[in-house]
Amino acid sequence: MENIQFPTISLDQFPTMPADPDRRRGLSRALYEEFRARIADGTYAAGTPLPSSRALAAERGLSRGTVTLVYEQLAADGFIDTRPGAMSRVAEGAVASLRRAGGARQERDEAGRVAGRLSAVGRRIAAMGIRDAGPTAPAEIDFVYGPLAGGDFPTQTWLKALRAVERQRVHRLEYEDPRGNLVLRRALQTHLSRTKGVSCSVEQIMIVNGSQQALDLCARLLVDPGESVIVENPGYRMAHHAFEACGAKLLGVDVDEHGLRTDALAALGPARVAYVTPTHQFPLGSFMPMARRSALLAWAARRHAWIIEDDYDSEYRYSVRPEATLLSLDRRGCVIHVGTFSKTLSPQLRLGYMVLPQTLVDTFVAAKRVADRHAATGLQRALAALLDDGSYDRHVRRMRRLQQARQRALTDALATHFGDRVRIEGAASGLHLVAWIPGLPASAEPALVQAARERGVRVYPVGPLYLPVRARSRTTMQRPAGLVMGYALLGTDAIEDGARRLLAALNALESRDNVQVDKA
Amino acid sequence: MENIQFPTISLDQFPTMPADPDRRRGLSRALYEEFRARIADGTYAAGTPLPSSRALAAERGLSRGTVTLVYEQLAADGFIDTRPGAMSRVAEGAVASLRRAGGARQERDEAGRVAGRLSAVGRRIAAMGIRDAGPTAPAEIDFVYGPLAGGDFPTQTWLKALRAVERQRVHRLEYEDPRGNLVLRRALQTHLSRTKGVSCSVEQIMIVNGSQQALDLCARLLVDPGESVIVENPGYRMAHHAFEACGAKLLGVDVDEHGLRTDALAALGPARVAYVTPTHQFPLGSFMPMARRSALLAWAARRHAWIIEDDYDSEYRYSVRPEATLLSLDRRGCVIHVGTFSKTLSPQLRLGYMVLPQTLVDTFVAAKRVADRHAATGLQRALAALLDDGSYDRHVRRMRRLQQARQRALTDALATHFGDRVRIEGAASGLHLVAWIPGLPASAEPALVQAARERGVRVYPVGPLYLPVRARSRTTMQRPAGLVMGYALLGTDAIEDGARRLLAALNALESRDNVQVDKA
Repeated sequence: MENIQFPTISLDQFPTMPADPDRRRGLSRALYEEFRARIADGTYAAGTPLPSSRALAAERGLSRGTVTLVYEQLAADGFIDTRPGAMSRVAEGAVASLRRAGGARQERDEAGRVAGRLSAVGRRIAAMGIRDAGPTAPAEIDFVYGPLAGGDFPTQTWLKALRAVERQRVHRLEYEDPRGNLVLRRALQTHLSRTKGVSCSVEQIMIVNGSQQALDLCARLLVDPGESVIVENPGYRMAHHAFEACGAKLLGVDVDEHGLRTDALAALGPARVAYVTPTHQFPLGSFMPMARRSALLAWAARRHAWIIEDDYDSEYRYSVRPEATLLSLDRRGCVIHVGTFSKTLSPQLRLGYMVLPQTLVDTFVAAKRVADRHAATGLQRALAALLDDGSYDRHVRRMRRLQQARQRALTDALATHFGDRVRIEGAASGLHLVAWIPGLPASAEPALVQAARERGVRVYPVGPLYLPVRARSRTTMQRPAGLVMGYALLGTDAIEDGARRLLAALNALESRDNVQVDKA
Repeated sequence: MENIQFPTISLDQFPTMPADPDRRRGLSRALYEEFRARIADGTYAAGTPLPSSRALAAERGLSRGTVTLVYEQLAADGFIDTRPGAMSRVAEGAVASLRRAGGARQERDEAGRVAGRLSAVGRRIAAMGIRDAGPTAPAEIDFVYGPLAGGDFPTQTWLKALRAVERQRVHRLEYEDPRGNLVLRRALQTHLSRTKGVSCSVEQIMIVNGSQQALDLCARLLVDPGESVIVENPGYRMAHHAFEACGAKLLGVDVDEHGLRTDALAALGPARVAYVTPTHQFPLGSFMPMARRSALLAWAARRHAWIIEDDYDSEYRYSVRPEATLLSLDRRGCVIHVGTFSKTLSPQLRLGYMVLPQTLVDTFVAAKRVADRHAATGLQRALAALLDDGSYDRHVRRMRRLQQARQRALTDALATHFGDRVRIEGAASGLHLVAWIPGLPASAEPALVQAARERGVRVYPVGPLYLPVRARSRTTMQRPAGLVMGYALLGTDAIEDGARRLLAALNALESRDNVQVDKA
């Protein structure tokens, strides 16, 4: 799932190339693009004050000249207003300027020469302002969600499996079935049956390069430009981007303590697909009870819609009873079930899977073949070995204990230090929770993030996981500030320490008369 | 590149599950779909006689009942005509029936229940009739192109690199830059500069899951439905499929001994992209001289078109001087250069790369992130180690010697046994050549393949690499039968033996009064 990186981005991708001009150009470009992206996604609304160039330079470890240059360029492009002696602010017409610039920008290369043109898909993706954060400058204590700790990876077991696989003599190194290695699919079939109660044939299982590829294939094969897709709001933005790339209109539906509000579906127009995370709603962590599951399936039947069930972390169940997956409840063949090994082994393996309805198998197989043939064979065979000899199960049990201990340390620390100044949501499973701060408005999230950053703690606001306003349903209400807190990288001491520092940040923020970003 | 599998497909994917009903259903379905696909792609034109059910059953190791069932279904669906006592033939209206069936088929699942619908992309992919062959039943001597010999893979070197990589302690296992691992991109930048004279920044290099993903990304980001794409005819069909999936209209341009006939471009309408293999045209093997390279670049400049330069096997140059890549000649930033490690290491690694024009970098990075985040990190780091310590270079040199010896064995054997009954094309480089048989018409290719198969030799016709007739340019002429002969799996003795058996097959074929498929 999303490695939430707001508001810091990668300015340190080339740590070994300190001061050459190319790097500086890269850094200023990255900063410029970050502002564009944040304006585009609504995080920086019109009128939002920008940090002073001095403060931003200090925070990012940039020269002040670099930041000034970026601000000048943003002003020249009409995205921000600057006045001498006053704070720079996001300009009123910034979003409109951005659209114009996005459209025209592709036609010419850097020297102004006319090159080719992008397709509609390309233009949509270019306009999304997606930037991969890449490795970030280390913070003392990082409550990031997404990465796993290198020390938790079962290196010896994995190496043993890789060695065994590579030493098996294979006569032909040839392209495989696009669904992936048959040995892995068989092992996975057994595993899914045992752990999730999923009953499917090996033909319905397709190994993908991480669950993101599953979402991308679904978007391409199921959604035409202009068609609607139901998504949770807040939700997993990387899934949303896959649908948006295909020209889908996102219909955001509110989420409460029981997941997607299925009662809101009837009021919405037709939709081709509903994308849901019923086992552990991302990011709010709620679990969808049976009544809503049935309601969602009934809606899909009425609308002839597909349901994508993204089960990204059900391995980490601490205090919820396993419920039947949507896939198991599906009698019409409309559910596509998606899973991943990014949360149990490593996101860098790029291994996920989908369980397809029988009617979709042929088309998805053909599409996967056209997309990239199949997933890397050696990795698949090594994973199959781990599943077959029980070492994957042992690893998952160990990880579950580890992550639960971290999560308890976090909930304990938050309860101890914050009392009723935080409300914890979604702590029944997974690798993250949401900490709401009822005393702080949502608009103060960037300031809280910044105050924490000054105390060596990196936290991530909920804000960027909400859809831009126009795509939200009417029922969206005022909400307090919230943080998505991951704990997979941290020891229990660091978690306790981090919670204390975060409290200090909150206190500092509340002691000010005005919550504002600029502290110059 | 294409693992040409005509006319055999995978009927033996589940060798350990011999006789259960699911398997039989899978087999008959596969056979049915194979016929549909061959009718759709024009290989089986109207009137083509089908093999008798007995002969086909024997060849495929199926029960005769299974084949009879498939023939009955094909007849019921209007794809073939059967008359008692006479050969079954492809029906006159087969292609039209196919189109009707293809459109309607997606609406209902196997039980006839209405499920959801496919997008236009999904429907196009479903209609292509692409089926991955998967592992095929072993032939004694297989002149397949695509797979590499398992024994040629540098297992020890690779394992050493994997071990070193896995043992490096990494603090955070996190999502990487979508372009791929920076260490690999740096190593590749140096490698490309040294081996291909390519000068580019590490920012322009993107690691992809095999070159197929590069083609798929190009198709999605550069081509809108209804736009034209220039392709070589015959050419690499898997590239064509990527464009077709996006709704592109393929404009096939003839190929001669100097590659794509650039003189034919002026007569064609506007096109968004030209896809070419200038270093070693697939499949005919010609090398594009400088004059045509310049003409192609000039055409792209006039048309504001992109050029995709697929350099899939320039590591295997035997008797041609390296020529400047289109990328190096490009002054406008319109060339996208694509390469792969599938021909030097293994197609199962799924590692390829693209060198992007600066103007396209941001969009392709965002698209790769949405598509599947990035390529698997461990494999990339192991490959970087091989590039950095010189073992990749040593391996390529070893492979070049090996493949050249195999190729010489094949050209020698063909010259010795066939004399002027074959004309060899494209033997200056690569892992395959084309053997034309001037005495045999193109329509006899399936019969030749079949006759060879009876003698334990698997060969692959050129036919399926040509575009369907309506997409061909006017200049397409009558051609003799031709075979794409790969030699990467074979020892020199097997090559010599295979050539002898192929001669026997040709002799048998020519001694018959009528060349026909049915020998029952």
